[in-house]
Amino acid sequence: MIDFKYLAQKYDTPLYVYDFNHFTQQYNALKNAFKARKSIIAYAVKANSNLSVIRHFANLGSGADCVSIGEVKRALLAGVDKYKIIFSGVGKRDDEIKEAIQKDILMINVESEAELKRVDAIAKELGKVARISIRVNPNIDPKTHPYISTGLHENKFGVDIETAKGMYIFAKKSENLNPVGIHFHIGSQLTELEPIREASEIVANLVRSLKAINVDIKFFDIGGGLGIKYKDEELIKPYDYAQAILSTLSGLDVTIICEPGRFMVGNGGWFLTKVLYEKVNGDKRFVIVDGAMNDLIRPSLYNAYHKIEVLNDNKEISKANIVGPICESGDFFAKDIDVPKTNPGDLIVIHSAGAYGFTMASNYNTRPRAAEVAIEDGNDRLIRRRETFEDLIACEVDYLV
Amino acid sequence: MIDFKYLAQKYDTPLYVYDFNHFTQQYNALKNAFKARKSIIAYAVKANSNLSVIRHFANLGSGADCVSIGEVKRALLAGVDKYKIIFSGVGKRDDEIKEAIQKDILMINVESEAELKRVDAIAKELGKVARISIRVNPNIDPKTHPYISTGLHENKFGVDIETAKGMYIFAKKSENLNPVGIHFHIGSQLTELEPIREASEIVANLVRSLKAINVDIKFFDIGGGLGIKYKDEELIKPYDYAQAILSTLSGLDVTIICEPGRFMVGNGGWFLTKVLYEKVNGDKRFVIVDGAMNDLIRPSLYNAYHKIEVLNDNKEISKANIVGPICESGDFFAKDIDVPKTNPGDLIVIHSAGAYGFTMASNYNTRPRAAEVAIEDGNDRLIRRRETFEDLIACEVDYLV
Repeated sequence: MIDFKYLAQKYDTPLYVYDFNHFTQQYNALKNAFKARKSIIAYAVKANSNLSVIRHFANLGSGADCVSIGEVKRALLAGVDKYKIIFSGVGKRDDEIKEAIQKDILMINVESEAELKRVDAIAKELGKVARISIRVNPNIDPKTHPYISTGLHENKFGVDIETAKGMYIFAKKSENLNPVGIHFHIGSQLTELEPIREASEIVANLVRSLKAINVDIKFFDIGGGLGIKYKDEELIKPYDYAQAILSTLSGLDVTIICEPGRFMVGNGGWFLTKVLYEKVNGDKRFVIVDGAMNDLIRPSLYNAYHKIEVLNDNKEISKANIVGPICESGDFFAKDIDVPKTNPGDLIVIHSAGAYGFTMASNYNTRPRAAEVAIEDGNDRLIRRRETFEDLIACEVDYLV
Repeated sequence: MIDFKYLAQKYDTPLYVYDFNHFTQQYNALKNAFKARKSIIAYAVKANSNLSVIRHFANLGSGADCVSIGEVKRALLAGVDKYKIIFSGVGKRDDEIKEAIQKDILMINVESEAELKRVDAIAKELGKVARISIRVNPNIDPKTHPYISTGLHENKFGVDIETAKGMYIFAKKSENLNPVGIHFHIGSQLTELEPIREASEIVANLVRSLKAINVDIKFFDIGGGLGIKYKDEELIKPYDYAQAILSTLSGLDVTIICEPGRFMVGNGGWFLTKVLYEKVNGDKRFVIVDGAMNDLIRPSLYNAYHKIEVLNDNKEISKANIVGPICESGDFFAKDIDVPKTNPGDLIVIHSAGAYGFTMASNYNTRPRAAEVAIEDGNDRLIRRRETFEDLIACEVDYLV
């Protein structure tokens, strides 16, 4: 049991709290599920990119799935083995590609023909060979939120099977490209197994036909997207997930790369916020808290559900909206939920906030971003200090004339 | 004409560009519209809180409408007269209220009974008198986007007329409160006049009945919310806006406070981004650019329209999505619009990005926030430098153990 009241008192609110022991469990569960094969669990840094979180996974042996050169730098700084770092993303700038090649990471995951040619040209300029994988878009509906679904042709991600084949042939011929991997990722917060198995089968068949033309794929990158329980979702078990993938790989000697983000950190994070006031407008009750959409935007942006717990003993319960201090009606954490009567200072815990919480935070309304705290083996420690007003103006105050 | 290509070359992309001369025009248009009365135009800092933008308005004589103590500090640092600063917002922390009283700003705009009591108690502790206004929620439908509509009882903002009356009586009796103002604001991007007039009439009548009980309101704060043209909206003219308000104020000797944000800066700002690649998936065409939802979230968050201009001479036009490099399908600037064929490096200008653009930016995907540039009388200057990787990890690198 984490003592949220103690942490709120010690570090103030709004505050993000992460349970590093939970992170370890999630890592181990997935790693074990694939134990029948060589595998790399490459933590998807975008879910929670705090340096200490990445280091925690690095210490467990994790790699890193990165979507910007900034994330690659975070992974290296945190101690991830460079041969376990993948640089993905649908739009990479030339300077990012150059730096990724120079840093000699495992591979660059290429998302279009145009990009493959840029990587080829840049590797040539540098006199290097770039290891690459190609992201295949298997045109499978993952049945998740449209904003986090990525595996259909109508999405911007990856290339279709035929295009991929042509790209592998191009890469095979190039002196500056080494096509070592293949990649697919059909969406985030996946809760159904069958679309994953289908996608894997399509991509595995492509690996077989590539083998026939002497393109030898060593890394079979199955992306991420394993879901977590926000409310009452039926979850895929890591074992079943692994079996579904493995069932498609017979005869292939590949290392499996898995890129979980939300699965690793989502349910091991909480957002703590304090009640400022209650108010009633007409027949609507509002509980106004000191956290806001700038801290945690998922309810506003995706209409996402997060379990909300009020840490008081009040038995008088009625419907309320939990809202932040930001001047828009979109600034809410929950609407029309059962909430006990609260007093100023009461602590509210927003669950499942470990993924896509702090990483999406902004300074909207000149609100400093929250602090982040890690709990490990019963000990708590700061892993990112609260921003100050001075931090917020640091990039602009020198230009005030 | 602003030379966007020159600016993109000089300052790199993604980049925000602001036309300070346009800002001046907007300020003057509104100030002149109210010339029949004493008025304060209090720029709503949340729309664009760059210190140099605030200073520009301060130099014109503008006040500042602030929604956090951070914004109050920005306004003071930028040189806004403290007696023209208002601190609004639905949830203020005790330390914010305390600092606002100590800084002796014009008034604290109170949004609930509970908050009024906090302000009273804190002023008492400090041995000061806090000047306050009360935000009245006139229960008028502004006919705008639900997320930026604020004047209905179902919103979290303000208090109803009867509650306000009780609060004024409480304030009148207190030795530590001086109720000098009244405030209403029914929403943002307003394009219809009648809801504004109706709301103003309701609030003006409240001022009259307060006068009868010796509560003398000096500042009639009409909020902001004047719309701008994103696409083809019919706009309210400042003159008509002022007349609608003034028509409700006969017999009242009040200073009008107007709190425009979007109106002042929205159409004087552009977001510049460069094409990275084009790709086609199935029958969908994607133009991938170096800007993303972390830079400008309005299209994702509100499904907002922004006019998009591609600066090339290509006559070959077809439908495309303009998307950023972030790993979600929600990362788009426009969908299915006519776009000329592009080449890598082509510049794209996103219009009407002066308000709620940079202020809502995040570091999602470890993307440094863009630089901001001001244009004034034909000269360009940096007003916020581009963030670096070191800036992004500054608050956490010391805690990496």
